[in-house]
Amino acid sequence: MTKWVSSFGDGKAEGTASMKATLGGKGANLAEMSNLGLPVPPGFTITTDVCTYFYAHDNSYPPELTAMVEEALGKMEAQTSMGFGSAEKPLLVSVRSGAPISMPGMMDTVLNLGLNDETVEGLARASGDPRFAYDSYRRFIQMYGDVVMEVKHYSFEEALEDLKREKGARFDTELDAEALKELVKTYKAIVRQEASRDFPQDPKEQLWGAIGAVFGSWMSARAITYRRINSISAEMGTAVTVQAMVFGNMGDDCATGVAFTRNPSTGEKLYYGEYLINAQGEDVVAGIRTPQALSKAMAEAGESDPAESMEVKLPGTYKELTDVFDKLEAHYREMQDIEFTVQQGKLYVLQTRTGKRTAAAALKIAVDLAAEKVITQDEAVGRVEPASLDQLLHPTLDPKAERKIIAKGLPASPGAVSGKVVFNAEDAEAKAAAGEAVILVRIETSPDDIHGMHAAKGIVTQRGGMTSHAAVVARGMGKACVCGAGELSISYRDKTFTSQGVTVKEGEEITIDGGAGLVMAGRVPTVDPQLSGDFATLMEWADKLRRLKVRTNADTPTDARTAIKFGAEGIGLCRTEHMFFQDERILAMREMILAQDVEGRRKALAKILPMQKGDFVQLFEIMGPRPVTIRLLDPPLHEFLPHEPHEMDEVAKAAGVEPKTVRRRVAELKEANPMLGLRGCRLGILYPEISEMQARAIFEAVVETAAKVGTAPIPEVMVPLVAMAKEFELIKARIDAVAREVMAESGKQIEYQVGTMIELPRAALRADEIALEASFFSFGSNDLTQMTLGLSRDDAGKFLEPYQKAGIFEHDPFQSIDQSGVGELIQIGAERGRKVRPDIKLGICGEHGGDPASIAFCEKVGLDYVSCSPYRVPIARLAAAQAMLRQKSAN
Amino acid sequence: MTKWVSSFGDGKAEGTASMKATLGGKGANLAEMSNLGLPVPPGFTITTDVCTYFYAHDNSYPPELTAMVEEALGKMEAQTSMGFGSAEKPLLVSVRSGAPISMPGMMDTVLNLGLNDETVEGLARASGDPRFAYDSYRRFIQMYGDVVMEVKHYSFEEALEDLKREKGARFDTELDAEALKELVKTYKAIVRQEASRDFPQDPKEQLWGAIGAVFGSWMSARAITYRRINSISAEMGTAVTVQAMVFGNMGDDCATGVAFTRNPSTGEKLYYGEYLINAQGEDVVAGIRTPQALSKAMAEAGESDPAESMEVKLPGTYKELTDVFDKLEAHYREMQDIEFTVQQGKLYVLQTRTGKRTAAAALKIAVDLAAEKVITQDEAVGRVEPASLDQLLHPTLDPKAERKIIAKGLPASPGAVSGKVVFNAEDAEAKAAAGEAVILVRIETSPDDIHGMHAAKGIVTQRGGMTSHAAVVARGMGKACVCGAGELSISYRDKTFTSQGVTVKEGEEITIDGGAGLVMAGRVPTVDPQLSGDFATLMEWADKLRRLKVRTNADTPTDARTAIKFGAEGIGLCRTEHMFFQDERILAMREMILAQDVEGRRKALAKILPMQKGDFVQLFEIMGPRPVTIRLLDPPLHEFLPHEPHEMDEVAKAAGVEPKTVRRRVAELKEANPMLGLRGCRLGILYPEISEMQARAIFEAVVETAAKVGTAPIPEVMVPLVAMAKEFELIKARIDAVAREVMAESGKQIEYQVGTMIELPRAALRADEIALEASFFSFGSNDLTQMTLGLSRDDAGKFLEPYQKAGIFEHDPFQSIDQSGVGELIQIGAERGRKVRPDIKLGICGEHGGDPASIAFCEKVGLDYVSCSPYRVPIARLAAAQAMLRQKSAN
Repeated sequence: MTKWVSSFGDGKAEGTASMKATLGGKGANLAEMSNLGLPVPPGFTITTDVCTYFYAHDNSYPPELTAMVEEALGKMEAQTSMGFGSAEKPLLVSVRSGAPISMPGMMDTVLNLGLNDETVEGLARASGDPRFAYDSYRRFIQMYGDVVMEVKHYSFEEALEDLKREKGARFDTELDAEALKELVKTYKAIVRQEASRDFPQDPKEQLWGAIGAVFGSWMSARAITYRRINSISAEMGTAVTVQAMVFGNMGDDCATGVAFTRNPSTGEKLYYGEYLINAQGEDVVAGIRTPQALSKAMAEAGESDPAESMEVKLPGTYKELTDVFDKLEAHYREMQDIEFTVQQGKLYVLQTRTGKRTAAAALKIAVDLAAEKVITQDEAVGRVEPASLDQLLHPTLDPKAERKIIAKGLPASPGAVSGKVVFNAEDAEAKAAAGEAVILVRIETSPDDIHGMHAAKGIVTQRGGMTSHAAVVARGMGKACVCGAGELSISYRDKTFTSQGVTVKEGEEITIDGGAGLVMAGRVPTVDPQLSGDFATLMEWADKLRRLKVRTNADTPTDARTAIKFGAEGIGLCRTEHMFFQDERILAMREMILAQDVEGRRKALAKILPMQKGDFVQLFEIMGPRPVTIRLLDPPLHEFLPHEPHEMDEVAKAAGVEPKTVRRRVAELKEANPMLGLRGCRLGILYPEISEMQARAIFEAVVETAAKVGTAPIPEVMVPLVAMAKEFELIKARIDAVAREVMAESGKQIEYQVGTMIELPRAALRADEIALEASFFSFGSNDLTQMTLGLSRDDAGKFLEPYQKAGIFEHDPFQSIDQSGVGELIQIGAERGRKVRPDIKLGICGEHGGDPASIAFCEKVGLDYVSCSPYRVPIARLAAAQAMLRQKSAN
Repeated sequence: MTKWVSSFGDGKAEGTASMKATLGGKGANLAEMSNLGLPVPPGFTITTDVCTYFYAHDNSYPPELTAMVEEALGKMEAQTSMGFGSAEKPLLVSVRSGAPISMPGMMDTVLNLGLNDETVEGLARASGDPRFAYDSYRRFIQMYGDVVMEVKHYSFEEALEDLKREKGARFDTELDAEALKELVKTYKAIVRQEASRDFPQDPKEQLWGAIGAVFGSWMSARAITYRRINSISAEMGTAVTVQAMVFGNMGDDCATGVAFTRNPSTGEKLYYGEYLINAQGEDVVAGIRTPQALSKAMAEAGESDPAESMEVKLPGTYKELTDVFDKLEAHYREMQDIEFTVQQGKLYVLQTRTGKRTAAAALKIAVDLAAEKVITQDEAVGRVEPASLDQLLHPTLDPKAERKIIAKGLPASPGAVSGKVVFNAEDAEAKAAAGEAVILVRIETSPDDIHGMHAAKGIVTQRGGMTSHAAVVARGMGKACVCGAGELSISYRDKTFTSQGVTVKEGEEITIDGGAGLVMAGRVPTVDPQLSGDFATLMEWADKLRRLKVRTNADTPTDARTAIKFGAEGIGLCRTEHMFFQDERILAMREMILAQDVEGRRKALAKILPMQKGDFVQLFEIMGPRPVTIRLLDPPLHEFLPHEPHEMDEVAKAAGVEPKTVRRRVAELKEANPMLGLRGCRLGILYPEISEMQARAIFEAVVETAAKVGTAPIPEVMVPLVAMAKEFELIKARIDAVAREVMAESGKQIEYQVGTMIELPRAALRADEIALEASFFSFGSNDLTQMTLGLSRDDAGKFLEPYQKAGIFEHDPFQSIDQSGVGELIQIGAERGRKVRPDIKLGICGEHGGDPASIAFCEKVGLDYVSCSPYRVPIARLAAAQAMLRQKSAN
């Protein structure tokens, strides 16, 4: 019989940490901690298989589940010597979700389950604290009502506020047992009113209601969005963990907190966390009361009061806790994120998991753990998410720049960004979609804000600590975030905030520094990132591991210099057309396009030749001995002509032709589907003089550079959009002829290669024929994706999102390669090319060259290099190393 | 050692008819005829391998060729008892080209080679006819000067005319020996003047000059054009045949002629041909003198004088000749095209080859030969070029229509067409490119006119017979042609012709009936073709042979009825969008597109539903038990909206919305590359209500048709532009849901299939995933070609021609499938689809479905059916049968 339930507690467990797939992360770690002998309240986990069963069987459970849950409950009762539903010693439980991959804040949790009008009295007697009992009961009704019975949570909040006003209480803690008893009655009335039924008194009914709500929430809109953003499959399902409650809110010898074994923001080795005396866990995470630091050191760094730290307030428990930290980090060989509760002086560990961290912290922790010999260098390389490096490679505030600080908060997630202020997730999404950089300013954030946080460049909250929702999510997303900026007075209605006497309206620009916790007015200049020692160390380890070379897509000296700084090993794609768009050049280009015959075109091209040659000399000098792949002109000619009537008249004037000539030519060149039109090598077939000019510029630049610096660069001339081998042959013949001419003229030998883009499905299929003449292939994965999927990148915007929502695309295929479609063509192209020319050089130069999943694919297919934008070079280096690690561990 | 030369003559030969690849068609048949013991003048053939060698070695010959030619010449001298260059008994030769595939009129020929100032006297003595000798010499200088020495032929013609004027002669034959001797001097002076060197006197020098000219002409612009139009590879090269001259111009017991063993225009079993007494072969083909009929019967039918027929004039030789005809037709088992010469009463056969014929003739000859048991029924099916059937399927003149005949000529190539008159090839090409139907009117045509003839719908000439250049080429191309319409007075300068008092200007419309030899003023109505008994017979034989089913692409009742008449076995593609463009419907369609929400769209779609259902009922009734594949809406929505401002205003008014709403929607829907945009199944994913309406229309039509006619049609619902299996799954789920609804509402079971187009490379690659749910695939080869080659059909026009000229495309890939690119994807799609679903139905529905080469490919890949336009259905039936024949003979 399938085992649907797995128990833990009392120093042993039926599961282990390796069973995340069935127990979820939370359940597996609770089992593991039980096995480690850590103080874990007993409980059991309903497996993810039940979730799968639930959705496959019309929201029903396996028939044998009830009995299994009963049995597990029985064990809990035995271990705690309490009874579920007992009026004397009532066992209360928490019910939590736990997916195999952590989805913080996305799933619903119910605490204090098991309380009813009878057991609350039992709890009052057992704890000797009626106030605590009724506070727990009212919290339970509120949470259960919200999560399970769909009663709007503000109904409860309003009733609480009304009562506080009536009683003259500032804080919840000032309400006494009687007042809370009254509140419970009010809450039950609210439930009856809004849910049209009574609040359930039967603890078993409560339990099954909560279990159903957890499974139900797996398909909530929030969960689906989170999974989509994070590319998590819905297949895996969630587990449900039921655990005996312990209470951090039974008095001042009680506390609750969350902690990291190292600083998740910087990676510093430092016990890091927050706690609240006399509180339940939700109070810390929800950010409603601002918690205190765990350690004195952290309090001092974070500007909170060291005297209030746990290290000072509960020194014995603190020591016990840090021992648990050390034990867990050593056991998991990884920085941990831990939840704990202290009930009447006794420590309970409620959860441990790999702690989320910023890229900088990930880097430092990985390098430190390797230095501490806890992990190997290879493991360290595998520990840093390549895409997260992006956070480290972008500018920080210029230290010399003037800045007007208007608020200070917690440095919740690093990065310096400027953007226009928005006050809700919808506006953030809308403006970001319109191409604007926005900063989302909220009192606090909730899971409902996820899509807005995703769209924003940065996040500011008025309330909440370093482990508040906003902080955790922002770090996960790599967004700059300032939390708990209490000075802010935010009006959602007016769409303004005021701080230090300055009022900022929606749409006005601010700058935030998430590494320093600063909010500044206006735009503050930034400077290039300082790539730290840890960065260099990890990159060095990665470079030792990887086989794939990493080149860059660069058209300008600036790009080329940046890329070299980031470790690029060559240029994989230099788009020559970008050079034609510059002011002086576009005139000659237009003259060429407007010319009536080949002589006219040659005349215009002769003007472009020296400029283009100059560009190449510059690039060759910067790149030194590194290979430079230069693609011949690719876009359709109409891209160089204006389309507005008055612009056409200007061009006519400048070119000295009739306006109607320009109009006629624009009309002639107009295309129904330019992507599939007269572009790429087709231009070179129809107008060979263009290819000839470009080849001459390249070869003359080689000779000139060689004369200047002593050694000759070896250019790789790349022919775009080849469909037929013959196209390539014809253009290669022209290039070779020009090379011979330049060699004859200069008296110098020129080494060079001629290769092609493989960016049409046909080229991939007939790579064998093309490879007969081509020295290298560069897979143009952007166009290959467009053609293979019949999807224009310019037009797909309208349906990419609905397509991702409908589960048709798991990823945006322009971001991460469609491995089973486009990928197969790349594989076919690589195999057939190599069959004919075993030493053919193979690379990729689309957007995908900087995407870790796509790089892993390139490693699998055995390409020689990837080429990506300069800022993605380090990401590609790390991803290439990780791909190699995965290959190794697969073998 | 390679044998570069192959001799023949005297009842034996080194080659046979099977050696066309090396000897060319002419050389192989001369060898074969020699072996058959027919009276063939001796000679030798220089093989096509020499041509290949020539172009591979910088226009030079294999070193051993000279000796081999000498040896072969020696044999000729021995057999004829004459000497090449001998002043006593001079051997004269012809030098002709002969490619493996006949290329009439495209290659150059030199006759009378070996004459010089000495041998001419020898010829005069040997023949006893100095006039004949000098006439031969002057013809030789003229031909050699033109073809080998590049002297303009009109220089010679002017000199001849001058001389005739001077001597008061009307015809060439009125010039005597002395006059011709004088002309020879003038000709030699012209050569010296224009070629800057003397006319060569050395016969060997003459010979090598002529051989070089033949090889050189293989790469002439005319030859290249002919090969391009006829899809002939340049690789095969041409052979050169050198043969002893015989003379049809040595007196009135001499003659020359060309003949067909059956009527090449109708296929009737009748000795058919033309001859001229006292003439050389060129005189017949060039159409300068109008020749006489071979037989009395033919003369009577063709309105020439029976008394002048060869049957009457040279009865003995005629009998000998018809024996040769019978022998050759029996030997080759095919209608032959024969050239012959009678020299002083002795018959010589100079050439035989398979005769070109009209489609009607091909059909009749094939069926007749099978009836005569000369060939089998299968062979008969293989004898008719499928594409040529097109000629038979198009309208002929309405017999009841009024017509104003303005000229009569020879019925050179059948077909009734109307078009605007043009007077040269360039104008024909330009106007045809602009979409106009044109009729090319010429005094006579030459190989330089080929491209214009290709562009024209029909051809009229003033001069020339049934075997003139115009007639032969027009029949080959399947163009209507009227030849030798002597009444026409044509002015190229004024671009007019006058006939029977009517003057027709360029651009005015005429109608010609090439089957009756009529030229008519204006446009004359036509009627549908009568599909003859032979047609039906051959189709029946073809249908017995073929495995591939043939369906049609039909959107309208008219299309469907035509297709059934032509033998379509179902509809392979019904494009539903064509139904949306009709007047009343486009309003509802636009209302749908302009709607703000799904409710608005549903409202508009509800208006379209009954109309669309009505269409389907009509189609189902016409198609009866035949399958009908209905494709869901495919084009992007902007195709339904107007693009001119005033049209948008009208639409706004009609739809009752603000003009700006229409403009905004038009702008929203605008796409950079509509081919790769929001179309096909993407519409159904974003607007499921469209698919639902269409599915409902289909299923309700099934129920309605079943109620009307008693049996229910089984529709095949086709989802277009699928890239991802999930897209298909989602839309299929909607279709299935609608089917269940309609079944519930009507209380009837509905049988149906849901399948998909495979028209994106990704769909072909992932056909396995798609086949899990799809009952059939239809390869959309148009879009698959566009995507695979990255080539927009709308935009490719600009470079398709240069691409074909440059040898990049052998065929237009939109006409005939790119087998090694697009074809491989079809093969992959078919294999992977079948692997998952062995009984999946596979078809093709692009333009290629009616192209014989593509159909052969579909047979090879094992598709179940092809679908093509109604008029191509018979072509597809025949092509499918021939593909099967080829498969059989390959096994």
